[in-house]
Amino acid sequence: MMARYSFKNDYSEGCHPNILEALARSNFQQEAGYGLDSHSTKAKEMIRSLIKNQEAKIHFIAGGTLSNLLVISSLLRSYQSVISCECGHILQNETAAIEATGHKIHSIKSDNGKLTVQAIDSLINEIGNNFPHSEKPGLIYISNPTEVGTIYYKDELKKLSDYCRENDLYLYMDGARLGHALTAEGNDINIEDIARLTDVFYIGGTKNGALLGEAIVINTEKVNEEFEYSIKQRGALMAKGRILGIQFEELLKDNLYFKLAKHANNLSMQLKNALLKKGYPLLSDTVTNQIFPIMDNQKIEELLKKFDFYIWQKIDKKRSAIRLITSWATEEDKVNDLIQEL
Amino acid sequence: MMARYSFKNDYSEGCHPNILEALARSNFQQEAGYGLDSHSTKAKEMIRSLIKNQEAKIHFIAGGTLSNLLVISSLLRSYQSVISCECGHILQNETAAIEATGHKIHSIKSDNGKLTVQAIDSLINEIGNNFPHSEKPGLIYISNPTEVGTIYYKDELKKLSDYCRENDLYLYMDGARLGHALTAEGNDINIEDIARLTDVFYIGGTKNGALLGEAIVINTEKVNEEFEYSIKQRGALMAKGRILGIQFEELLKDNLYFKLAKHANNLSMQLKNALLKKGYPLLSDTVTNQIFPIMDNQKIEELLKKFDFYIWQKIDKKRSAIRLITSWATEEDKVNDLIQEL
Amino acid sequence: MMARYSFKNDYSEGCHPNILEALARSNFQQEAGYGLDSHSTKAKEMIRSLIKNQEAKIHFIAGGTLSNLLVISSLLRSYQSVISCECGHILQNETAAIEATGHKIHSIKSDNGKLTVQAIDSLINEIGNNFPHSEKPGLIYISNPTEVGTIYYKDELKKLSDYCRENDLYLYMDGARLGHALTAEGNDINIEDIARLTDVFYIGGTKNGALLGEAIVINTEKVNEEFEYSIKQRGALMAKGRILGIQFEELLKDNLYFKLAKHANNLSMQLKNALLKKGYPLLSDTVTNQIFPIMDNQKIEELLKKFDFYIWQKIDKKRSAIRLITSWATEEDKVNDLIQEL
Amino acid sequence: MMARYSFKNDYSEGCHPNILEALARSNFQQEAGYGLDSHSTKAKEMIRSLIKNQEAKIHFIAGGTLSNLLVISSLLRSYQSVISCECGHILQNETAAIEATGHKIHSIKSDNGKLTVQAIDSLINEIGNNFPHSEKPGLIYISNPTEVGTIYYKDELKKLSDYCRENDLYLYMDGARLGHALTAEGNDINIEDIARLTDVFYIGGTKNGALLGEAIVINTEKVNEEFEYSIKQRGALMAKGRILGIQFEELLKDNLYFKLAKHANNLSMQLKNALLKKGYPLLSDTVTNQIFPIMDNQKIEELLKKFDFYIWQKIDKKRSAIRLITSWATEEDKVNDLIQEL
Repeated sequence: MMARYSFKNDYSEGCHPNILEALARSNFQQEAGYGLDSHSTKAKEMIRSLIKNQEAKIHFIAGGTLSNLLVISSLLRSYQSVISCECGHILQNETAAIEATGHKIHSIKSDNGKLTVQAIDSLINEIGNNFPHSEKPGLIYISNPTEVGTIYYKDELKKLSDYCRENDLYLYMDGARLGHALTAEGNDINIEDIARLTDVFYIGGTKNGALLGEAIVINTEKVNEEFEYSIKQRGALMAKGRILGIQFEELLKDNLYFKLAKHANNLSMQLKNALLKKGYPLLSDTVTNQIFPIMDNQKIEELLKKFDFYIWQKIDKKRSAIRLITSWATEEDKVNDLIQEL
Repeated sequence: MMARYSFKNDYSEGCHPNILEALARSNFQQEAGYGLDSHSTKAKEMIRSLIKNQEAKIHFIAGGTLSNLLVISSLLRSYQSVISCECGHILQNETAAIEATGHKIHSIKSDNGKLTVQAIDSLINEIGNNFPHSEKPGLIYISNPTEVGTIYYKDELKKLSDYCRENDLYLYMDGARLGHALTAEGNDINIEDIARLTDVFYIGGTKNGALLGEAIVINTEKVNEEFEYSIKQRGALMAKGRILGIQFEELLKDNLYFKLAKHANNLSMQLKNALLKKGYPLLSDTVTNQIFPIMDNQKIEELLKKFDFYIWQKIDKKRSAIRLITSWATEEDKVNDLIQEL
Repeated sequence: MMARYSFKNDYSEGCHPNILEALARSNFQQEAGYGLDSHSTKAKEMIRSLIKNQEAKIHFIAGGTLSNLLVISSLLRSYQSVISCECGHILQNETAAIEATGHKIHSIKSDNGKLTVQAIDSLINEIGNNFPHSEKPGLIYISNPTEVGTIYYKDELKKLSDYCRENDLYLYMDGARLGHALTAEGNDINIEDIARLTDVFYIGGTKNGALLGEAIVINTEKVNEEFEYSIKQRGALMAKGRILGIQFEELLKDNLYFKLAKHANNLSMQLKNALLKKGYPLLSDTVTNQIFPIMDNQKIEELLKKFDFYIWQKIDKKRSAIRLITSWATEEDKVNDLIQEL
Repeated sequence: MMARYSFKNDYSEGCHPNILEALARSNFQQEAGYGLDSHSTKAKEMIRSLIKNQEAKIHFIAGGTLSNLLVISSLLRSYQSVISCECGHILQNETAAIEATGHKIHSIKSDNGKLTVQAIDSLINEIGNNFPHSEKPGLIYISNPTEVGTIYYKDELKKLSDYCRENDLYLYMDGARLGHALTAEGNDINIEDIARLTDVFYIGGTKNGALLGEAIVINTEKVNEEFEYSIKQRGALMAKGRILGIQFEELLKDNLYFKLAKHANNLSMQLKNALLKKGYPLLSDTVTNQIFPIMDNQKIEELLKKFDFYIWQKIDKKRSAIRLITSWATEEDKVNDLIQEL
């Protein structure tokens, strides 16, 4: 049990109560295993309708790292590599899970956490001149929102997508917090756009109200139909696939998934505005559910007595950036308490 | 929804109601991520008490294949291989998940699904003479109960354990249905014995009343302390580790885990006795929750109209063996219905 | 230095003198690295002419295991497996090199070392019913001659080839001793047939007069054009590729490669006839440069005083099979000495 | 055949004539396979004497990339990573061969191609705070000379070595051009120091007068004795190991290895002095057999008509750095011709 209220991450609580109710309701119903149950079938149909692509293949996977390593290792051939922004989750926070499947990740520096066609093209040209002594990039990895809380705009994603299609590269979007991107202020992309412009993306459940679960969406015929083999081979095929299906079924009913994300965004924007008003600079101008204010270390110490959060980065001897995250479960009162303390 | 009552597997239903209640009870409590929550801590303590080894390291993992590949790839060095019974789950039902991590599995034929020191020793000698053109076995994989429903007895396990320790081999027990082995008629091993005689084993939750989850138990200092890296690298570290902790906490309270397994065993033994009484031969003399009766194909067709189960193996032109599984959730009425139909 | 004359293998001597002369002749000529030298270019042209396929892609690789792991890991996708005869070199003598690249090998029992369509088809059907819990076979591995010294006949190879093309499987022939197969008594296949009927095969140099080197021949457009990446990635791209090119250039001049193999076969057939005349049974009716006579252990002890060879297999308490190999370098006198001793 | 004289690399010619003579002399002598021949045995003894370590284990391997991937994948456990300078050969020129064995490489920027304790320590601390979401570094990879032609001095190597031993890290030196480092002007390290201060290093043959071959030297008991399994598993065990043994036997006789390297260094220093005298700036102040002068693109075009070399790096719109390499085989006349042209 945590005594202090936590803004440390968006997976501190269990799940939205609708999910628990649905689990209870369906508990003694016998279902087929391995994702062939009625709930998974239903949830897949709901996603296909949402993205308006009846041909899309959907797979429910327990977590984000497992989804990333599964997608990337399934799509790429043994000599192919991945291109990611330097802050990419697969580069910084997954214990070399991708390399463990045999693939190198090229790192591209970026201040706002986004990849651009220029940066990718320049890297590919440089590597290409060294054939065959350098590997061949085969997949562009992006996340939306990015690791620093920014989002991709439609023209940016369109350019990446066009470039990838012209250059025979897969475009894969890590959507661990996809709901937060799509409900952010200023966002001009919808989920149909994403399905149209990427080859594969996933809709993150764990960080938006599910107990566990991410929905991998495959939007292209280029992707091998035998993805199921990989799921099993990587240990990602759940016997009781029903529990993943049920969660997405509930999250997608009545737009709940987007409502929960919007709730988190609203509270983080309240926090952001309060911080700006009080003169705290921000490390990154985020529009989703993560805020990175810069504070005196002494102030941070004080805040830590009442609230829990990550110290994100040293700025100088006296100041650091912290990360404050809101979620589907964050209580407005607690945000107000925090604002009070600032 | 399945119209016919299913004896197809032991993961057709959700989970024991206690688990759903515990999930609901703790739902809005904030907890640390990645298995550092209070429930996982508590459940680990309960397991250490149960096996009477305060030094054991416990890790909760979503499923069996993921547990197997994680344990094996973490323990072995790149040139080492695994020895398994031919019917081993890692050989027959995991889409080469172990080979995908770079390790060969040697297959040993066995009628009763068990490995013996003689068979292992003979294989190791044969391979050893071909150094370095054959790989070096590093781990013995067994499961209890075996894939054909039999169990290991204490003297058998002791001999394997002694052999492994003398020959610098890890002994790993897949306990997907461990509860069913330990509550089987005639079983003379308890969980303390297993912790003492193996290097690593896992306590299976998925097939005995959990929504998901297996508890890997590491009983030896030989096993590298940095197992956590591997868990994350293989995509097996759950953000909301609490949901695994909660399940084992509930299953281990008041011996529930063993009661559920005993329930399944009792019903399968009722079935077995009825089948024997009616003159059906059995493919394997099982003592746990799986029964493999041999029937005329016509009889099988008839039964399939009312019940669901796997046709396991062709016996001859007219007959096949089927697999009937009972579980923590199987209703005695339904078993009686099935007996009626036989 | 070996005191006793060795029939242990076909790589006990250096190389055909023509190769040493060519190495000396070209030694100070500057050449491009990595297989782009004039000798490799020439040797590739010679192979394309030989197999009458101007589109074939040729790559020279240092050794057999490296060739096998390179071809197999390049062709297959991560979830695909290999099918091999139980005695296959990749199963018995390569320290799990294929599994180390992530691929399972299915083993098929066979008395004569050959695979048949029936055996393959039965395995594939069995596995296929377990989708996706069993891996997906993607490549058939055969060697010609086989590990037990037999050869494939044209109708046998044709059937395998047809089956593979109908079932979207690669057919790969390990030709470590290809020359010996193609010059064996009774052989009805030529190298053009092999190029036409397989997807990939290699022409073994090491066991037929080269210092080192195998020529991988890719006969199909299905095989990815980016094989060069894999060669470098697996450490198989030699800086001084010229030394591989020079060897094949010499071996292919004036049919030397086939003359050397024929020499080895002739001597082994002399041995075989002598053995049969003297009443020694043979383990396998070989037609290439390996003979497996069965002898009393006492006789073997005696022979070992004057000659070196492998004891291949225990037959019973009193008798074993030995392996006698002849090569491009074996002297007829020594064969006669051996016959004398029998 | 190359019309222009090439300063492109140090593997444009065949090998030192002594090697060809030795190959011819020993050609029909029968030898054991797989490195158990008399020449390999002798060459290993010579290396043990040279480094004054009778316990060292020596293995001859065909090439550099194969040596690197073999050493690194054998030493590390699956969750461990490598630290390398950004310009490291394993990062820039080996097609992700290390990642293909499952290990991530961390890149550290460095102007002179060398790693320092400070840079390593800072990286390790940063990563360590993210346990277990970042991998665990297990090996420091350096090369001597570095990729930019500089060398490590004794105090630098000593500090790295001490740090590695204190922090349970392997120290591995890629010695593709080790001879050139050890005979460079100003070098204060000898090969005994290297054997004492590293865990593993290799003595490069390919770039210093051999047809092929590198000698891996293992100086520590920490390194697993079962390295032979890995050699075979990675396809690096040559049937005719004799050809590697013979080459090192010849290169180590009468100090030939060091004389050849010294020859290359002398010529490159002549070039360097001439370039400096004529006012060409250098990209890097090299002391070994690589020179990186910066020139007008027009001048480069002119030079390319008579000589072959790599254009290494664009400096600005008008100028580029080129790489000129001398070798054991470079003729002094040709160096003078080049100087004339400058």
